[in-house]
Amino acid sequence: MKEIIPIKIKKDMKVSELVDEMGGAGFGAETISKASQVMKDMFLDKDCKVFIGMAGAMVPAGMKQIIIDMLDRADIFVTTGANLTHDLIEAIGEKHYHGDSSVNDEELHKQGIDRIYNVFMKNSVYEKLEDLFEKYFSELKDCVNVREFLWKLGEMISKENPKANSILLKCYKKKIPIFCPGIADSGIGLMMWGRIAAGKGGTKIDVFGDMNEIIDIAWTSKKRGIIYVCGGLPKNFIQQSLQFSKGADYGIQITTDRTEPGGSSGAPLREGISWGKMNPKAKFVDVFCDATIALPLIYGAIKDVI
Amino acid sequence: MKEIIPIKIKKDMKVSELVDEMGGAGFGAETISKASQVMKDMFLDKDCKVFIGMAGAMVPAGMKQIIIDMLDRADIFVTTGANLTHDLIEAIGEKHYHGDSSVNDEELHKQGIDRIYNVFMKNSVYEKLEDLFEKYFSELKDCVNVREFLWKLGEMISKENPKANSILLKCYKKKIPIFCPGIADSGIGLMMWGRIAAGKGGTKIDVFGDMNEIIDIAWTSKKRGIIYVCGGLPKNFIQQSLQFSKGADYGIQITTDRTEPGGSSGAPLREGISWGKMNPKAKFVDVFCDATIALPLIYGAIKDVI
Amino acid sequence: MKEIIPIKIKKDMKVSELVDEMGGAGFGAETISKASQVMKDMFLDKDCKVFIGMAGAMVPAGMKQIIIDMLDRADIFVTTGANLTHDLIEAIGEKHYHGDSSVNDEELHKQGIDRIYNVFMKNSVYEKLEDLFEKYFSELKDCVNVREFLWKLGEMISKENPKANSILLKCYKKKIPIFCPGIADSGIGLMMWGRIAAGKGGTKIDVFGDMNEIIDIAWTSKKRGIIYVCGGLPKNFIQQSLQFSKGADYGIQITTDRTEPGGSSGAPLREGISWGKMNPKAKFVDVFCDATIALPLIYGAIKDVI
Amino acid sequence: MKEIIPIKIKKDMKVSELVDEMGGAGFGAETISKASQVMKDMFLDKDCKVFIGMAGAMVPAGMKQIIIDMLDRADIFVTTGANLTHDLIEAIGEKHYHGDSSVNDEELHKQGIDRIYNVFMKNSVYEKLEDLFEKYFSELKDCVNVREFLWKLGEMISKENPKANSILLKCYKKKIPIFCPGIADSGIGLMMWGRIAAGKGGTKIDVFGDMNEIIDIAWTSKKRGIIYVCGGLPKNFIQQSLQFSKGADYGIQITTDRTEPGGSSGAPLREGISWGKMNPKAKFVDVFCDATIALPLIYGAIKDVI
Repeated sequence: MKEIIPIKIKKDMKVSELVDEMGGAGFGAETISKASQVMKDMFLDKDCKVFIGMAGAMVPAGMKQIIIDMLDRADIFVTTGANLTHDLIEAIGEKHYHGDSSVNDEELHKQGIDRIYNVFMKNSVYEKLEDLFEKYFSELKDCVNVREFLWKLGEMISKENPKANSILLKCYKKKIPIFCPGIADSGIGLMMWGRIAAGKGGTKIDVFGDMNEIIDIAWTSKKRGIIYVCGGLPKNFIQQSLQFSKGADYGIQITTDRTEPGGSSGAPLREGISWGKMNPKAKFVDVFCDATIALPLIYGAIKDVI
Repeated sequence: MKEIIPIKIKKDMKVSELVDEMGGAGFGAETISKASQVMKDMFLDKDCKVFIGMAGAMVPAGMKQIIIDMLDRADIFVTTGANLTHDLIEAIGEKHYHGDSSVNDEELHKQGIDRIYNVFMKNSVYEKLEDLFEKYFSELKDCVNVREFLWKLGEMISKENPKANSILLKCYKKKIPIFCPGIADSGIGLMMWGRIAAGKGGTKIDVFGDMNEIIDIAWTSKKRGIIYVCGGLPKNFIQQSLQFSKGADYGIQITTDRTEPGGSSGAPLREGISWGKMNPKAKFVDVFCDATIALPLIYGAIKDVI
Repeated sequence: MKEIIPIKIKKDMKVSELVDEMGGAGFGAETISKASQVMKDMFLDKDCKVFIGMAGAMVPAGMKQIIIDMLDRADIFVTTGANLTHDLIEAIGEKHYHGDSSVNDEELHKQGIDRIYNVFMKNSVYEKLEDLFEKYFSELKDCVNVREFLWKLGEMISKENPKANSILLKCYKKKIPIFCPGIADSGIGLMMWGRIAAGKGGTKIDVFGDMNEIIDIAWTSKKRGIIYVCGGLPKNFIQQSLQFSKGADYGIQITTDRTEPGGSSGAPLREGISWGKMNPKAKFVDVFCDATIALPLIYGAIKDVI
Repeated sequence: MKEIIPIKIKKDMKVSELVDEMGGAGFGAETISKASQVMKDMFLDKDCKVFIGMAGAMVPAGMKQIIIDMLDRADIFVTTGANLTHDLIEAIGEKHYHGDSSVNDEELHKQGIDRIYNVFMKNSVYEKLEDLFEKYFSELKDCVNVREFLWKLGEMISKENPKANSILLKCYKKKIPIFCPGIADSGIGLMMWGRIAAGKGGTKIDVFGDMNEIIDIAWTSKKRGIIYVCGGLPKNFIQQSLQFSKGADYGIQITTDRTEPGGSSGAPLREGISWGKMNPKAKFVDVFCDATIALPLIYGAIKDVI
């Protein structure tokens, strides 16, 4: 048995040193250190295709830059329509703001402020989005799957604001396969609906049109690494693509959802072994932590070596 | 101020009596009683369109019958692809089983058992599903939106097993608008992909093709009532349809997700007021409880009067 | 493998019938049914000494009557000083009230209202308590252990309000061993301190003076059953008494605390096996649920048969 | 409104820089940054008496050194008997070990290993403890309150292992008031009971004997700062001492307990305002995070400046 070594904080300590110290400790600290090790191994393994699934309101919360940086090593990126909407909102120059979660929501509504826990956004951003979708609708509607649609949004950003710091823009430019199985459920969906409802015609985007690509990568890659942030559809969609593959070889999950109510977001990675989604010999770890705390720590600890 | 009255358990007590007693207590007990009252008010209000959003693995967990019964009062039903897949699996005669969440998942995998917390399923169900989708693919692929596709699945069940106790069958027969914005992310999605990948052609199902119907009901109804079970895409999709309506007039949310990490599933209903999704004068309550405990209690308490 | 049977809600359903139906379901519903079965077995086993440990603000929340009823079958009762203080407050005619957890706490303070989540109490109750402790201090200070001190409080209630519906009174009258290892940490503690600080002398209550009695019962009983509500000191104190016994034979734990941060309150009962506190062959179940919801359900389901 | 600035991870980043970046983000990241700021302000305010309350199994988890370092700025330290027992165990040369939380607990028991989530300890440590308490019992039994008793334990360590890295030793040497209202509920309690049960006489430690000292400091200090780790008795005992003071001026709480079930451990600091335990103008923040992750981060970020 390996001894627990109490964490020692030093002056001017680096993030990598802190996470290293956490590896000597137990409970959650140890999981942070393990996750960092798994991420490093996964990123440095050239045979490994990296699948990142990200739910939660990570863009409004200020995780956008870390996502963009991690995309350098992502082979598949799956996220929610909400994150992409907020990415688009920032790409066209709008902002998110610090707020207080205990304010009066009726007051906020009167002031035209939408609240996402302790993050605020002006409701007026939707007007600007409308103009944008009006302008590009004809191009967007002819895409044949969501991935193509999302790259088209990236292309749209490249025209409107080529220097934008944006997930959509980066995926477009670097041709990173990006999926969003719940795209209708988002501000982007609302914008598309607005045009469709106005009689400008439906789209050609087949609701099942992206499955081939993600399953193909899952089944043909030598190794697979998964990073799930906040569960949700992104996790489940990647899990599904792995079901009849050889399973993931590396895995990190960050979630605060409970296991006991049985939902996918709170299910430990270990459960995936029964389904064949996780290889029993994989290196994997579940981190119970707010992702805005855990992700910067885990990624921050390996920035020097990847 | 109203006094707390300690709960008194009596012999042969009815569920409605117990929930009534809970109304005298504080903490979570009080929320169960309030939710029951809100559900009753919502169900008895003839001007109110009822939107039910259900995530979580509610069908494998044995909540199917309660959902089917509640559909008698639902005007919109939104759920996950997983719940519909498991509904379909049961509709064709397959089963879910009691299991132990602490078993060895590698052993389960060898035995062909998939685990969902403490519920087990044989992996062989997928073979039966394949035959079914093979048989009906040509009909399914020509649907133009997910709602039509799901009714078609219901019709398929009506032919294969007309006496099945099934959500899909009931929605088909009673023409209840049923939506599933993440349908690709499910066993049903896998089955459709299988046929498409085999070169039998893509579908005509527009990924944005359902938005008009749900938004139309949300915007034109006199009043709106919402019931969210386990958050997820179903909650968010209904919330979105309410964003530019007058907001919900009644609301019940059952979730164990945390508020602090900022995700939609854990966001209290109150937050929706800032977005205009919830009317500030609405009757609403958040219930922090495993839905398999809370939902039978809440619904059980009003069964006599609705 | 045993099939999952969906819960069917019927009109006029009894609590026992609902919990019985829950036994056919999975996830949390199943744990409620199991807990009910374990409680019945434990209560009907005449060789079994029942240890109840109750933390959380169960008295303010309206669980007092259920506790009092369960004391009919308790051989040991361990709780927090807070619960006993609130029991005493109600015993002398003061009340707890329904409140709103989102109110302005500064306003409450100005109005002399103390808040416990959604339960309110007038701060003026402390004045009445002071008079009481002033009157009985000389008797209280000469007790030699906390159990004797708590019975003395019960005796005090029997004089002041003999018809009070009170935990302390019941334990005194029925000579139920009641322990509170953190008694100093409570309103009762404050009252004792007030007198001591006023120079009326310290007490004779030995801080270790109760251990012999609880350990003696744990070690000499034929069988042991444990019911832990909300973890805390009460759970840990009972667990400790079991450490060098043969371990518990029946166990129920109701808590919403997480396992991962490693604290005793969230530790699953299974962990106690490693310590020898739980017999590996015991019937036991962990229930993840707000105790004000789970306890009335579990106890309500077996009221007819115990 | 202040803009959200996405966190940017740099190579060789320092912990203080990362936490600074977190201040630009939302959700939990922001609370870490705020907590760090509050801790700095509290520690640098010379008028402020710092009260640290620590529950959870922080010593087995490897937080001992951080606690010892923070004691340099603590005026009051309150913890559980378990933490002090594990501190004593390490002080006499025994260890805690890394373990796996999913192992078979019956196997562990056979091997004499006690499990605390993912931390292991040999059960044989108790034998060594027994010898120690046998040797020093006569000195320990004559202490008049728990604080004196705990300093005596520190003195005992100073004789047995003067170079030990120990909380008890540091509190003894630096005369830091250390309290443990639940001392009977611990391995230390068991050791004392063993001697008492063997007929060597009871102690003189008055169960209410420490209240005067903590309340005196709370009431007479110019300002008060509180740091609560994992709630429990330590939090509640400090809160109680503040009830009739002017309330805390600075506050940090780290807990993963839920608010909704109404217990003290999960109650937000804001609730204390209604009771007068928290000053409405105080700087305070609630951090929802595993303390073994949050505490090293928060403390690590200010190590350079305190």
